[in-house]
Amino acid sequence: MVRTVFVNGEYLPEAEAKISIFDRGFLFADGVYEVSAVVNGVLVDYSAHTDRLERSLRELRMDWPCSRTELEAMHFELIRRNALQEGIVYMQVTRGAADRSFNFPRPAPKPSLIAFTQSMSLVHNPNAATGVKVITTPDLRWARRDIKTVMLLAPVLGKQEAYEKGAHEAWMIEDGFITEGASSNAYIVKDGKVITRGLSNEILAGCTRRALFRLAAEHGVEIVERKFTPEEARAADEAFLTSASQFVMPVVEIDAQRIGGGQPGPVVRKLRELFLAEAGA
Amino acid sequence: MVRTVFVNGEYLPEAEAKISIFDRGFLFADGVYEVSAVVNGVLVDYSAHTDRLERSLRELRMDWPCSRTELEAMHFELIRRNALQEGIVYMQVTRGAADRSFNFPRPAPKPSLIAFTQSMSLVHNPNAATGVKVITTPDLRWARRDIKTVMLLAPVLGKQEAYEKGAHEAWMIEDGFITEGASSNAYIVKDGKVITRGLSNEILAGCTRRALFRLAAEHGVEIVERKFTPEEARAADEAFLTSASQFVMPVVEIDAQRIGGGQPGPVVRKLRELFLAEAGA
Repeated sequence: MVRTVFVNGEYLPEAEAKISIFDRGFLFADGVYEVSAVVNGVLVDYSAHTDRLERSLRELRMDWPCSRTELEAMHFELIRRNALQEGIVYMQVTRGAADRSFNFPRPAPKPSLIAFTQSMSLVHNPNAATGVKVITTPDLRWARRDIKTVMLLAPVLGKQEAYEKGAHEAWMIEDGFITEGASSNAYIVKDGKVITRGLSNEILAGCTRRALFRLAAEHGVEIVERKFTPEEARAADEAFLTSASQFVMPVVEIDAQRIGGGQPGPVVRKLRELFLAEAGA
Repeated sequence: MVRTVFVNGEYLPEAEAKISIFDRGFLFADGVYEVSAVVNGVLVDYSAHTDRLERSLRELRMDWPCSRTELEAMHFELIRRNALQEGIVYMQVTRGAADRSFNFPRPAPKPSLIAFTQSMSLVHNPNAATGVKVITTPDLRWARRDIKTVMLLAPVLGKQEAYEKGAHEAWMIEDGFITEGASSNAYIVKDGKVITRGLSNEILAGCTRRALFRLAAEHGVEIVERKFTPEEARAADEAFLTSASQFVMPVVEIDAQRIGGGQPGPVVRKLRELFLAEAGA
């Protein structure tokens, strides 16, 4: 089946899905995105993603490309046309196409909106059974990581480094502390308590992170928001990461050092189960 | 006249110039670029730009999209087809199009190459007669500013802030020192000596900067490479910026404070004249 994608109002076969070379997403990384999980053909925690999109657009003074209702309908239509049972919907909004100039174009062009699906195994992701390996690497990113922009070259380089070292994710280090993963939030568990960095401009406010906080509170798992070092992470009882496409994913090795005996521990397994139950898995 | 642009081997009217939404330049800012000036229909200092392109590609482990000979021929052809007398040629290389995944795609897709011209007044740029205003703003950029990537959202925001304050450029501040402009290198003049920040990962090694160093040495103008603060800049005798499209451009106001009486000073005027003479103006 040829994948059908969405480009500025049209549903197209992926090979025909193109945008102008003058799109500011292409020339300036002047764009934002969201990734929503789909389980059993249904979007998971979708409104959290559109709330975050709204914030990203506002922070960059970028207009909405369409109404919220239209955006949601487009997600439904992409899921339907691609018969997507499990995977993700990726959407990206940019400031639009205009002759190249750093300033915001005036008059403002219509923002671009593109979206596509990716079919993948989320619930029975084999990584969840074994846990994944992470490396640590310097955090090279810009100062506004709270905005979910396509300024992703540093995460790309981090992920590639991890891949070449046989690992799955790169946890980034700034001023001696782990900020977050290249495409996920980072957590450790010590003495039954979950530790994760507090929100600021230094990390993305993960939608899965937010859901995790609520589930943890409902089920009596304590979460402490504070910075932690790579040394502390390597000495933790458990470790894990969260993202929209990985949910709650156990980490069993950090910089080639085993965590908790190299097996997913009880806290992360419980949190993943709670998340899966809520996602309708 | 409809502008003819170049997209992956084809010369096209600009309205038809499109790339895949899966291009990594669009999804990840996984691309690099160069801007070469054209004066009297001839490229200025072109080899410096391809040398820097080579370095950018190497640092990101990206392949060349074509040979150096083909790249130069494409520049000539764009200038010819657009009858460009004065302006710039913009070229961008990305890691190519592949289904979205942070890791470098394997097998590696063919890198994308796009290019277009912009007609503009460079030699008799009216800004050069009056000088321009700059503001200062925090440097939000990532850690590898030595690579000329399309990770440009921080410069976009800086330029927009400058524009809204009636200024032309934003000089960015990190740890109390000016790094460089949003799209130019930054200089001050004190007691006849030019002061500019030394090269590192913190700034771009400007091609015009390099040409300026050579011309200054040939004509007995001393350049001191060191960091300088906004306070020092506002108290300077003269200030200026360099970029491929602006050559040597006088700065006469920094954060609404006049520099050198608000007129382009003798050192910057001399350096601009030297540059124009070499550029064949």
